[in-house]
Amino acid sequence: MEYRFARRTQQIRPSTIRQILKVTEQPDVISFAGGLPAPECFPVAEVALCAQKVLAEAGAQALQYAVTEGYGPLREKFAAEMKARGVSCATENILVTTGSQQALDLIGKAFLDSGDCVLTEAPTYLAAIQAFQTYEVRFASAPTDEQGLETGRLEEIICRERPKLLYTIPNFQNPTGVTQSAERRARVCELAARYGMMVVEDDPYGKLRYAGADIPPIKSHDRDGIVLYVSTVSKIVTPGMRIGWIAAPEPVLRKLTVAKQAADLHTSNLDQRIVDRYLAGFDNNAHIQRIRDTYGARYALMNSCLSQSMPKDFHWTHPEGGMFLWVTGPEEIDTWSMMEEAMRRKVLFVPGRDFFPDGSGHRYLRLNFSNASEKDIRMGIARLAKVAQQFVQESSRSS
Amino acid sequence: MEYRFARRTQQIRPSTIRQILKVTEQPDVISFAGGLPAPECFPVAEVALCAQKVLAEAGAQALQYAVTEGYGPLREKFAAEMKARGVSCATENILVTTGSQQALDLIGKAFLDSGDCVLTEAPTYLAAIQAFQTYEVRFASAPTDEQGLETGRLEEIICRERPKLLYTIPNFQNPTGVTQSAERRARVCELAARYGMMVVEDDPYGKLRYAGADIPPIKSHDRDGIVLYVSTVSKIVTPGMRIGWIAAPEPVLRKLTVAKQAADLHTSNLDQRIVDRYLAGFDNNAHIQRIRDTYGARYALMNSCLSQSMPKDFHWTHPEGGMFLWVTGPEEIDTWSMMEEAMRRKVLFVPGRDFFPDGSGHRYLRLNFSNASEKDIRMGIARLAKVAQQFVQESSRSS
Repeated sequence: MEYRFARRTQQIRPSTIRQILKVTEQPDVISFAGGLPAPECFPVAEVALCAQKVLAEAGAQALQYAVTEGYGPLREKFAAEMKARGVSCATENILVTTGSQQALDLIGKAFLDSGDCVLTEAPTYLAAIQAFQTYEVRFASAPTDEQGLETGRLEEIICRERPKLLYTIPNFQNPTGVTQSAERRARVCELAARYGMMVVEDDPYGKLRYAGADIPPIKSHDRDGIVLYVSTVSKIVTPGMRIGWIAAPEPVLRKLTVAKQAADLHTSNLDQRIVDRYLAGFDNNAHIQRIRDTYGARYALMNSCLSQSMPKDFHWTHPEGGMFLWVTGPEEIDTWSMMEEAMRRKVLFVPGRDFFPDGSGHRYLRLNFSNASEKDIRMGIARLAKVAQQFVQESSRSS
Repeated sequence: MEYRFARRTQQIRPSTIRQILKVTEQPDVISFAGGLPAPECFPVAEVALCAQKVLAEAGAQALQYAVTEGYGPLREKFAAEMKARGVSCATENILVTTGSQQALDLIGKAFLDSGDCVLTEAPTYLAAIQAFQTYEVRFASAPTDEQGLETGRLEEIICRERPKLLYTIPNFQNPTGVTQSAERRARVCELAARYGMMVVEDDPYGKLRYAGADIPPIKSHDRDGIVLYVSTVSKIVTPGMRIGWIAAPEPVLRKLTVAKQAADLHTSNLDQRIVDRYLAGFDNNAHIQRIRDTYGARYALMNSCLSQSMPKDFHWTHPEGGMFLWVTGPEEIDTWSMMEEAMRRKVLFVPGRDFFPDGSGHRYLRLNFSNASEKDIRMGIARLAKVAQQFVQESSRSS
């Protein structure tokens, strides 16, 4: 049977990362490819206790249909969290979503017509591209450096491309790990307001800072209701339950709510109540501190292993938080072909080109440090360094 | 701030039902409006036990990210359930979705381009309309009678409208409660194959039969891979966890999986494992029999109360299962204006026009009987009958 799929399905590429995750569950493979949190940091016992209490005290309510906007007490907690992050926010500004991936899909549904332009960082998070591709948009990109999204040429790009929205990850960006400076955040907000460009500020990693000081979000500068702030409990409690949120002005929230009604009616009522109970009953700050300590130590080890073993033409970012670092190889390297050799040597990374909407990025690769043990980091980086050395030698021989 | 929302948001109407659900939580209001299962039938203790076991035995796995297709053992169980329903199906044909609402959204994402035609029953389930409206389609409708979707003029409608897909609920349809005959199901499949029209067979209520014999699904006639079968555990275990599934040919399933990746990465891993454990460890058939007995008794009581008290020009359907019956008033009645008077008398229903894509349906109303106690059914139908009598008198006076 010849199926007539929608045009958009020609565009939406399956995620290489998720393909890699599927095929590589052999125990002797060391993976720096996924974006998985460290499972040993999951608050399993606390979640079990919360599940038990929710089902004992309000079982029938937790198993029934619920309102689309989200469970009231959880919305309140997310609004309070927004205030703690420097953003004025009421409960009515919060929509609970089925993970922050759904937040991106709903924003697309509410704002994007076919042919609209979406501006992203280059490189950026592939699954955001996927979410917006559903709405048959075109992409433009703005360069980044070690201070995050560059604002020097941003106005010029906005004037040329007329993007309807900018998608940006200011904290410990995926894939680069870099963080945008306070000055640039203010400037992004100013330009967005001037040109009527919505900003989607995606902040899944902001709480995972193990060095330096917090920088208030772009949304903290927002006087015009032009910034939609997206976050999640995936990296600070659990990703398995798919609980995220959007903070947005009320007229936008109403549109997003109707979009969500059409998408999945509401997010799991049971999971929302479990997470609410967890946030009410346990010291999440202490828990986050444990995650920070773990990830900070893993980053430091990976950085030191890379320094000891990678060929001299490779350099990498030095994130102050998050889960990823970003390696730049010499111009002549193609990380996509390196990948095959790396798989043979049982070490995995994501080639850079998965993070560029235009398919460029051949000299980059992303490494995740949150999900590997210290032993695996030592062994895996040693393997990676061998692959890199081999490729540098081959390319110098062939040139 | 003047937001430039996407064109589609002009079309997607917020659901009246969900609006009604939100405003009417006063305890003395009797609602036949929602589509809620009876909470006293939820297996709360069993779910609590399953949650405890999942978190004790595989807590870290349950709280981690998971593959998009769904939790393997649960996919196997849904494939087995398909076979029990008369459909040949492998695990690879199953995609777990965030409720069956998401199944509709993903099918739209995979198949529908703007301007495509979607054929539905008239009346049909409003939230399906909402899901497909996301993709800026146009709607055509086919009439129904007490045997479900009429097939007599279906070929003519298909030739005229050239629909890309047909959306149909053959069992205990929402809103009418009627069931399509076996002959018509075979005919739908035959016409779909002949004209290359995909069929979305939505079957949330099929297991809730309290009279008569099961009729094999349209999908059981499918030799061409043209039927996408959608179902859910919402009505037989719990709707609060949002667990549904699509059974589809593998090439379609691959497209749906990529669409789901962009929509929410995966359905709650914890909830999938809880439901899987529930289906493995408890006698769900006995549980479903209790639901059938409860709903069957409530239907019988509502039918008898209606017979005793409604004015003679009102008649209604006599479903053999499901959760709804459908009342037809005299031609001059407008159930939308009846609604206001009914709200004043503290009884709620959904006016018919919410179920017609073209906004017609002024003489119909939908009653839910699964979610009201026997006392409420007696009292609520008495109130409804008074409203109906008043409207009949007024319309005879004004004519």
